[in-house]
Amino acid sequence: MARRIQDRLVDFRRSLHRYPEPSWCEFLTTSRIVDEVEAIGVDELYIGTDALDPEARMGVPNDEELAQWHDRAADRGARADVLDAAAGGLTGLVAVLDRGPGPTVGLRIDIDALRQTESTADGHAPAAGGYRSKTEGVMHACGHDAHTTIGLGTLEAVAESDFSGTFVLFCQPAEEVVGGGRPMAARGHVDKLDHFLALHVGLGHPTGEVVAGADEALSVRQLAAEFAGESAHAGAEPEAGRNVMQAVATATSNLYGIPRNSGGLTRVNVGRADVGSAPNVIASEGRIELEVRGGNDDLREYVADHAYRTLDMAAEMHDCTVETETIATAPREDSNDSLRAVVGDVAVEVSNVDNVVSTAPLGVSEDATYLMRAAKEAGGDASFVVVGTDHPGGHHTATFDVDERTLGIGVDVLSATVERLGD
Amino acid sequence: MARRIQDRLVDFRRSLHRYPEPSWCEFLTTSRIVDEVEAIGVDELYIGTDALDPEARMGVPNDEELAQWHDRAADRGARADVLDAAAGGLTGLVAVLDRGPGPTVGLRIDIDALRQTESTADGHAPAAGGYRSKTEGVMHACGHDAHTTIGLGTLEAVAESDFSGTFVLFCQPAEEVVGGGRPMAARGHVDKLDHFLALHVGLGHPTGEVVAGADEALSVRQLAAEFAGESAHAGAEPEAGRNVMQAVATATSNLYGIPRNSGGLTRVNVGRADVGSAPNVIASEGRIELEVRGGNDDLREYVADHAYRTLDMAAEMHDCTVETETIATAPREDSNDSLRAVVGDVAVEVSNVDNVVSTAPLGVSEDATYLMRAAKEAGGDASFVVVGTDHPGGHHTATFDVDERTLGIGVDVLSATVERLGD
Amino acid sequence: MARRIQDRLVDFRRSLHRYPEPSWCEFLTTSRIVDEVEAIGVDELYIGTDALDPEARMGVPNDEELAQWHDRAADRGARADVLDAAAGGLTGLVAVLDRGPGPTVGLRIDIDALRQTESTADGHAPAAGGYRSKTEGVMHACGHDAHTTIGLGTLEAVAESDFSGTFVLFCQPAEEVVGGGRPMAARGHVDKLDHFLALHVGLGHPTGEVVAGADEALSVRQLAAEFAGESAHAGAEPEAGRNVMQAVATATSNLYGIPRNSGGLTRVNVGRADVGSAPNVIASEGRIELEVRGGNDDLREYVADHAYRTLDMAAEMHDCTVETETIATAPREDSNDSLRAVVGDVAVEVSNVDNVVSTAPLGVSEDATYLMRAAKEAGGDASFVVVGTDHPGGHHTATFDVDERTLGIGVDVLSATVERLGD
Amino acid sequence: MARRIQDRLVDFRRSLHRYPEPSWCEFLTTSRIVDEVEAIGVDELYIGTDALDPEARMGVPNDEELAQWHDRAADRGARADVLDAAAGGLTGLVAVLDRGPGPTVGLRIDIDALRQTESTADGHAPAAGGYRSKTEGVMHACGHDAHTTIGLGTLEAVAESDFSGTFVLFCQPAEEVVGGGRPMAARGHVDKLDHFLALHVGLGHPTGEVVAGADEALSVRQLAAEFAGESAHAGAEPEAGRNVMQAVATATSNLYGIPRNSGGLTRVNVGRADVGSAPNVIASEGRIELEVRGGNDDLREYVADHAYRTLDMAAEMHDCTVETETIATAPREDSNDSLRAVVGDVAVEVSNVDNVVSTAPLGVSEDATYLMRAAKEAGGDASFVVVGTDHPGGHHTATFDVDERTLGIGVDVLSATVERLGD
Repeated sequence: MARRIQDRLVDFRRSLHRYPEPSWCEFLTTSRIVDEVEAIGVDELYIGTDALDPEARMGVPNDEELAQWHDRAADRGARADVLDAAAGGLTGLVAVLDRGPGPTVGLRIDIDALRQTESTADGHAPAAGGYRSKTEGVMHACGHDAHTTIGLGTLEAVAESDFSGTFVLFCQPAEEVVGGGRPMAARGHVDKLDHFLALHVGLGHPTGEVVAGADEALSVRQLAAEFAGESAHAGAEPEAGRNVMQAVATATSNLYGIPRNSGGLTRVNVGRADVGSAPNVIASEGRIELEVRGGNDDLREYVADHAYRTLDMAAEMHDCTVETETIATAPREDSNDSLRAVVGDVAVEVSNVDNVVSTAPLGVSEDATYLMRAAKEAGGDASFVVVGTDHPGGHHTATFDVDERTLGIGVDVLSATVERLGD
Repeated sequence: MARRIQDRLVDFRRSLHRYPEPSWCEFLTTSRIVDEVEAIGVDELYIGTDALDPEARMGVPNDEELAQWHDRAADRGARADVLDAAAGGLTGLVAVLDRGPGPTVGLRIDIDALRQTESTADGHAPAAGGYRSKTEGVMHACGHDAHTTIGLGTLEAVAESDFSGTFVLFCQPAEEVVGGGRPMAARGHVDKLDHFLALHVGLGHPTGEVVAGADEALSVRQLAAEFAGESAHAGAEPEAGRNVMQAVATATSNLYGIPRNSGGLTRVNVGRADVGSAPNVIASEGRIELEVRGGNDDLREYVADHAYRTLDMAAEMHDCTVETETIATAPREDSNDSLRAVVGDVAVEVSNVDNVVSTAPLGVSEDATYLMRAAKEAGGDASFVVVGTDHPGGHHTATFDVDERTLGIGVDVLSATVERLGD
Repeated sequence: MARRIQDRLVDFRRSLHRYPEPSWCEFLTTSRIVDEVEAIGVDELYIGTDALDPEARMGVPNDEELAQWHDRAADRGARADVLDAAAGGLTGLVAVLDRGPGPTVGLRIDIDALRQTESTADGHAPAAGGYRSKTEGVMHACGHDAHTTIGLGTLEAVAESDFSGTFVLFCQPAEEVVGGGRPMAARGHVDKLDHFLALHVGLGHPTGEVVAGADEALSVRQLAAEFAGESAHAGAEPEAGRNVMQAVATATSNLYGIPRNSGGLTRVNVGRADVGSAPNVIASEGRIELEVRGGNDDLREYVADHAYRTLDMAAEMHDCTVETETIATAPREDSNDSLRAVVGDVAVEVSNVDNVVSTAPLGVSEDATYLMRAAKEAGGDASFVVVGTDHPGGHHTATFDVDERTLGIGVDVLSATVERLGD
Repeated sequence: MARRIQDRLVDFRRSLHRYPEPSWCEFLTTSRIVDEVEAIGVDELYIGTDALDPEARMGVPNDEELAQWHDRAADRGARADVLDAAAGGLTGLVAVLDRGPGPTVGLRIDIDALRQTESTADGHAPAAGGYRSKTEGVMHACGHDAHTTIGLGTLEAVAESDFSGTFVLFCQPAEEVVGGGRPMAARGHVDKLDHFLALHVGLGHPTGEVVAGADEALSVRQLAAEFAGESAHAGAEPEAGRNVMQAVATATSNLYGIPRNSGGLTRVNVGRADVGSAPNVIASEGRIELEVRGGNDDLREYVADHAYRTLDMAAEMHDCTVETETIATAPREDSNDSLRAVVGDVAVEVSNVDNVVSTAPLGVSEDATYLMRAAKEAGGDASFVVVGTDHPGGHHTATFDVDERTLGIGVDVLSATVERLGD
């Protein structure tokens, strides 16, 4: 890849890195992508309800928060037309490049950031290099800035190539809450594909390594549990309370103790708790957010069943009640050998790729699986491509960063794959 | 008490009830009290740093929150001079009525409200009567609106009586966080007293009952514990986290299990927890607020010692750290028999008082004990007077309310006591 | 008291101390008491089913254990006639001294020991003095050896006095499991009394202090909870187990967290757990023994209700079952002022008594309350007398011991009281 | 296999099944094996310290228990010479059949039973067939009766074949506590082998299936943790105790919450707890037995490190102490491809074998890994052979049983393998 292109990719990725937006709040990001897509030139562009089925969304923040981010994006220069279409959490887009007869090939990238405070350490390149997040408490800590950059780079490369067929770029919102894959699949653009590619960088694979078709995405279910009890003066009448704090503590300790399963990998995590009001009042309300995962959908539900029972019994033990609802889910869906083979064949020829792995366990959850499943059900094939990148901190941590050489490698692997798939 | 006066007291109490302000944020309340005090006419008026020692305050909210309430008070018509003096959480005041030679008698009332959402039930008189809190999430759920009303009514009654001596009204902020008694004691006005009275309504005593000098306030210490661990992707690398959520759950369960003590009453409560960020991230930060209480200061510290160890070990068990700091404390301080006797003698003669109890256990904590202790150390005596009131819901609950007949009874008991103590 | 008598009391107490027997297994002890009672000479002697109602017993060990202690007593020289009558856990006795017309006065002492290993420390007098328990794991750690000695000394003193009336000595088994009071009350001898005295030494009161009529015995309920789940290979199939160990741990942590009660003192303790089989097997069975106490019967049941719910929910949380049964209970029953006054008047005149307290909280549970209640219901009065004794270690600990001067004081106080009550 | 031989195998297995003996107590079992081995005729026979290094044993019961089983074996007719050699827990043996020049081939079988009460259900064949365990609470619930039978059947078959070389049969004790493999490896007989075979039946593989060389034995460490605190009267002085029961409950709940690891499989189980003495005494002593496992030795130690910290902090939280010691460990050691291939080639030709799997994860722990490791370090190769058997209940459960057709299949597969390996 020419040095000049690589420099442009780096600049663009850093500008995204500076302005991270959380799931369903990617208003500025969507606006900037629209700018780029229009500059490259596409034949169809779907935004708002044309890109997503609003009813199928999961994990959408409340209206107040959506409005706050919407306003902030406006302040930072987002386009009015995009803001209008995306209002209320209808972010992301689908762009179609029609290059004549031939197969239809899709690429899905995800665009949202995490609610994570970015490191200020000198050893953290974005901090040292001046492109650390300008929004405290939100951070591109999972590489979606790189994904977005690679996606746009691929669109540009395909547009400039002699690819024959149709290329569809899915810029999906809200992957971090595994909430955006389902509504984008439900809108139906993915049903027209012959081949579907999804992308992730890193995941423990070093720069120069490519996984042609990863498998074993963790099946996941995220839950919110709302506890209710009764408040009382903690000094004067401790016996009059029905203590949500004790219910939550008991639930939490026991959730982590859900038995492991010989059938495969399981996970459980309580990642958020907001309970009670003041030290002298028995807590009467509390909310926790948790997730269960499994090596497949059955294992996930094994953990979920235990979790429901644990929550119910912990509440009842302390004479409280609990209401549990699913925030988000994503299934496991593996790559097809047919498409994995094409990616592998292409990748070995890309410069700076020094190791191509046919498959590897994904190790995380992904709502790209909704799109993969839909594509496969409609008769296409699908592959989840991992482009390795050296990352100093782990995904979802304050010091996560990508090796920017990955940007060019990613564009080269994916655009060459798309071209190979064309007539 | 004349019907007209009673009506005025009720109106004033309801107007306070409508606009509750939490501890250290009583900007509007202080402004309104200044209006009333000036209307009655006093000889000296101390506000801001003249009323409180800022360094001795406990439980003060952060600047942002103080500013928010300060602005809200301004919007609601608080006086600029009071707002200036009270800025930064220097609420409350001390008013002095000099009526010639004779002893100096003090009365302390507290003026803050609780962070509690008020009931909207029809059976809840403030809701039915149209004077429910206009500030969602904050409520006079402990009767401090009645305290303030009775205090001002007493000032007026004393001013209109032939009392000889000096009467000092202490309008103390931040009792609910047991944070205002210490700084008000530290400013020294209480050291000049011969007799010190404090007031509470209700506490399980019905309308018509008066406790001449309550004892056994619970000694209390409120703590904040900040946990720190390390975040990690809960699906991909659970072993890389140092999980604050587990530390908090373990601490909480075990705090409630601190052994009872044969030496007397003990209490422990974790009333607030705010932990972690998102379901798919191992929680790396969390804060809990708790309190320990005892029948005396030693019992309180017995529980506190266990609590510190429990917090430390729970953190270390999960490879996390914890920093604990005291938010507030209040000691136990009992009433003097000398002053209790005077109150009792007076109270039996007050109309609508049908039962006078010499003493009773207070059953709650109170930072009036700082003022009682200071008064006693300076050579005066002190008594904590409880004026009974029928209250449908318990203190600190959404349906707490006072029987408004108590307002007149309180004014009568206290003003008569002050007059009796004068020359 | 003459030196010679005091020496005999000491010798007898030490011989009892050497051969402690647990509740319902006091075969040797009963035999030795029968010897002493016969030597003193009584008019009626009730043993076995004539002393107790077998159906009303609580906390009886299984047949195997009873047989083991029965055999051991035989080996150590217990009388065959007593062993026959007491077989199967019918220990203890009632002795009646008929001294002509006059009131009937009863004294109850308890005779059993605890399952506690006695200290071997040089500082522990029984170890240094050569009369440490000869039965490892069982110990007179609550002073019942002293009670028995004082009871027999009192019988002897009354027999040698000019008391007119009837004196009944109740030697009750199984107090430590609060299991012997109810069946002895049910047999009816206590219904004939005009006055009923019960005795305890120590309880924090020093040598020379006497409590004429203690009150506030803790109401108690002891429970056994049997958990059942399902075993599985902990390595191969962790998901196949239903884990009793987790259920028990969760129950235990939460039992200690049952809220305190503003109505008075509460207690909870899980004192025994026996769970599972081997480290590599998911535990499928477990038994815990716990107790709940309250300042009165209602408070006890408040804790019990929470305990039942906690046990049920902990079991269900881990897909296990639990069966709970009451091992033993004892109510609260206070002393009568009438009898307390007599004891107090007598005690102040006893040599070596330097402080007589009219009443004090008992602070422990006692199944003498069954006998007190029965005596009162039949028209008599009752008092629970505490004879102070300096004790180095606390009751129920390995270094508990009595000050042997207490033996003579106890005999003097009680025999003088009985004589005073006679015509 | 001839019907007559199969019948003899079944009879022998059932006779072993009737008299199970736990780890290190296999006195009768060893005696019976010696009888059989002598009947078959071997050239060398090592028992007692000639078979095991006593210092390297793990998980040996106390002397009293060893003596009890030693006596029971004598009562049931065990040989005096064997009892003498095996006294003190030196059970098991090594038998050598020298058949001239050629390689040395070893086979290890394990002979102990589990502390598990056997089912009495009609559907449980041993119960219905009259060969249920005659020792209540001990059961061959893992098929070691079948292992022993197959081992002896193989010895007989090899003795009767034209195998040239040396065949060594290792009858290892104490596999269930993973305690016998290390001392048998330490004695050195295994160092002389060219090929080492180990055997297990079942493990989820059905009758007719053979795994030629299983891998991925779980690395295991079993721990005992002894807690010490201080007892106190739970009613009178709850604050005076240092409560081991609370420490154990907290440790247990948190042990099950040790984070999963993305590096591979982990396990943790607390399988046994024995805590405290009586419901009215704060527990001052307690012992738990637990185990940690991992997909490899590093993962095992990851869990172990967390377990040590959890135990320490739980104890310290409740002001108790804890001493932890390793009861037993076993590493992971995989099969060699070279030997696996031989077994596979042989097995496909055995009648009644309908499916040969080259390898499979073992899914359990095994101290045969000590012998495998020693054999490999001395230059030989090793394979862990699984002979499938339909088993109604899971391993280590009350209804475990083997399909007796497996006995003949096992003898055929192993004897044919030994013969193939000979010159």
